[in-house]
Amino acid sequence: MFVNEHFLKLSAGYLFPEIARRVQVFAEANESLAPRIIRCGIGDVTEPLPAAVITALHRAVDELAARETFKGYGPATGYDDVRRTIAEGDYRSRGIEVEDDEIFLSDGSKPDASAMLEIVGPGNRIGVPDPVYPVYVDTNVMAGNTGASDGRGGYTGLLLLPGTPANGFVPEPPSEPLDIVYLCFPNNPTGAVASRAQLERWVKWANACGAVILFDAAYEAYIRDPSKPRSIFEIAGARECAIEFRSFSKNGGFTGLRAGCTVVPKSLKGRTRDGQRIPIHRLWTRRWSTCSNGVSYPVQRAVQALYSPEGRSQTKALIDFYMENAKMLLAAVRERGLQSWGGDDAPYVWAQCPDGLGSWEVFDLFLREAQVVVTPGAGFGSLGEGFFRISAFNSRANIEEVGRRLAKLSAVSAR
Amino acid sequence: MFVNEHFLKLSAGYLFPEIARRVQVFAEANESLAPRIIRCGIGDVTEPLPAAVITALHRAVDELAARETFKGYGPATGYDDVRRTIAEGDYRSRGIEVEDDEIFLSDGSKPDASAMLEIVGPGNRIGVPDPVYPVYVDTNVMAGNTGASDGRGGYTGLLLLPGTPANGFVPEPPSEPLDIVYLCFPNNPTGAVASRAQLERWVKWANACGAVILFDAAYEAYIRDPSKPRSIFEIAGARECAIEFRSFSKNGGFTGLRAGCTVVPKSLKGRTRDGQRIPIHRLWTRRWSTCSNGVSYPVQRAVQALYSPEGRSQTKALIDFYMENAKMLLAAVRERGLQSWGGDDAPYVWAQCPDGLGSWEVFDLFLREAQVVVTPGAGFGSLGEGFFRISAFNSRANIEEVGRRLAKLSAVSAR
Repeated sequence: MFVNEHFLKLSAGYLFPEIARRVQVFAEANESLAPRIIRCGIGDVTEPLPAAVITALHRAVDELAARETFKGYGPATGYDDVRRTIAEGDYRSRGIEVEDDEIFLSDGSKPDASAMLEIVGPGNRIGVPDPVYPVYVDTNVMAGNTGASDGRGGYTGLLLLPGTPANGFVPEPPSEPLDIVYLCFPNNPTGAVASRAQLERWVKWANACGAVILFDAAYEAYIRDPSKPRSIFEIAGARECAIEFRSFSKNGGFTGLRAGCTVVPKSLKGRTRDGQRIPIHRLWTRRWSTCSNGVSYPVQRAVQALYSPEGRSQTKALIDFYMENAKMLLAAVRERGLQSWGGDDAPYVWAQCPDGLGSWEVFDLFLREAQVVVTPGAGFGSLGEGFFRISAFNSRANIEEVGRRLAKLSAVSAR
Repeated sequence: MFVNEHFLKLSAGYLFPEIARRVQVFAEANESLAPRIIRCGIGDVTEPLPAAVITALHRAVDELAARETFKGYGPATGYDDVRRTIAEGDYRSRGIEVEDDEIFLSDGSKPDASAMLEIVGPGNRIGVPDPVYPVYVDTNVMAGNTGASDGRGGYTGLLLLPGTPANGFVPEPPSEPLDIVYLCFPNNPTGAVASRAQLERWVKWANACGAVILFDAAYEAYIRDPSKPRSIFEIAGARECAIEFRSFSKNGGFTGLRAGCTVVPKSLKGRTRDGQRIPIHRLWTRRWSTCSNGVSYPVQRAVQALYSPEGRSQTKALIDFYMENAKMLLAAVRERGLQSWGGDDAPYVWAQCPDGLGSWEVFDLFLREAQVVVTPGAGFGSLGEGFFRISAFNSRANIEEVGRRLAKLSAVSAR
């Protein structure tokens, strides 16, 4: 069997397993310090599931325990009433046009972003922000949509859209046309959120050049500023040029339960080489019915429970809790004189590396000296070098402790 | 955006949605008959989950309800102890060499069979049985591993391995070398099971020509004949040439809960165009860590519960129940003088179409005259034409009723 050789182009292991490996090596070499380790690296929630979700899960499990209420194969794209709940709750109730069957349930936005490439043809010009969640780049490399590694986190044939302090980590549309562009707001890792005017420029540009925007809104629930769009579909014209990924990992705490959804408007069309216009919705539906049997039944009921009045208020409380953490982290980082971004409308604080250190050096320093795990910016692209990410997903006690340890850490200062 | 034009080659909708569509049309046009419809089409279980699974699910949900026991992101390829339970329970306890980390948890064998093509390169010569579960063909078409449809269910560039009454629906290895071959035993749809000698010939052939056997063992729990292999890894040499898909859908009744696993031996290697030998295990691990965050935590605990003493005996009772159904269906079909296969070591009965009818004609006839839904053989490949599949996954009362209706059905006789 001939293997997919594009995998061999990948320049490094996936970021988070590499972090886990380094933490494990440290813990094994420093047994007495191991219990002190506080993980603010991977953005994994720590608080229990909302009570409404727990109730819904137990109830759904009980349905599976009796012949009369047992559920076998469900629709590949999700139960109709769950799709309706999401379309209503996240979109139509907010004045955004999304039909029930434009919602596709999945086991998370990471799998969705990856699976999306199955319906993408070769020869697309693809743009990816730098720095950004590494899944977009890696999955495109694996799918053969790029050339070789450039040795600096990029790959030939992939246009990197620079996020820098100068643009507040919100890239503007490029001057050249593209076919696909990834956007992620609130951004992982920088916490930056695009304004309405900025997204309007992106939608206008995409419709002008026939590009599809893959909009990752996994962190939309963290936006507090009411002027900031939480969905690309708040922007006129987006139904002709955008797909949106949503996740229940960070609002409902479903990182272990696994659920997300993708919104594909029926008005969105791709094209063939000979100029035919093909509805993406049809391809994505076919992809799901052929390659999947849908999301676990109890998990779908858990998703639905997030939209009940209890589910909503419990989710809000969870988000408020993590955002209070973010505020404390932001204060701790600023106290050390480090420039920082995010933390206001996002659960991540993005900070300048102290003392001119590289981001893996800061990772190692914080682990060694403070037993605090952060995420090195370089893991998100070459423009992430010189920065690190701290996640607000942790207990209050741990976040307070991180603040104390950062305050005590010697040899840390702004460069 | 340029779309994946290979999708446009697909000659028809995925089989089971098409069946569902026809049933719905009939039900809407014949309201009074609609309640009489008995679905023996899609192989979907009907009995509730085993009690041990229900207990494990409730317990896992409760873990997610408390901060101390909460689980967020798990390992992408499954929790270590769940992988160990499967490797022990299905393999090592039966004298078969499989290591814990050769087990990859997933949300089902359909998604696994589809995802496997992500690590497969272009230019492989691929063999697929005919008739067989349509996912193997459709996913290869979508991935661009075939040419155009030949208008008879096949595609250029895909070698069909004929299953016929003459070979008992167990194809022999072809005379020509291939790079990838799919095998499915107990077979869906025919219920045929390969003997040890037959699988030995396949493994010998694969190792001789460097082919990888993708062995779908989703129905292995239904094998009653102790001489028949339940895993390809019972065959010497298979660790150098085979991957095995397992499912918990049909033994534990997880069609709605969603879980399966894939076994990839570390000794299995693929090759690059320039002759490098690459461990498939490494590529598959990378695929999972980049594209997934693993299987829902409660579902993993549910899988583990299938291997407890209670889980095992409850699963055995479920299988015994469905196999008693199969026996009754087999008798009903034979009583009508129709030649039949399967039903002994598989939950499917595969039968000759009566009166020289086509298989979709039989589908329509049975739906119209008896309100019994079967699966037309043509949906599984052109050699499935002239046959139909009846699924034993139903309540006892329904199976008895299907027997009565088949007995009464006029205008049905062997050709």
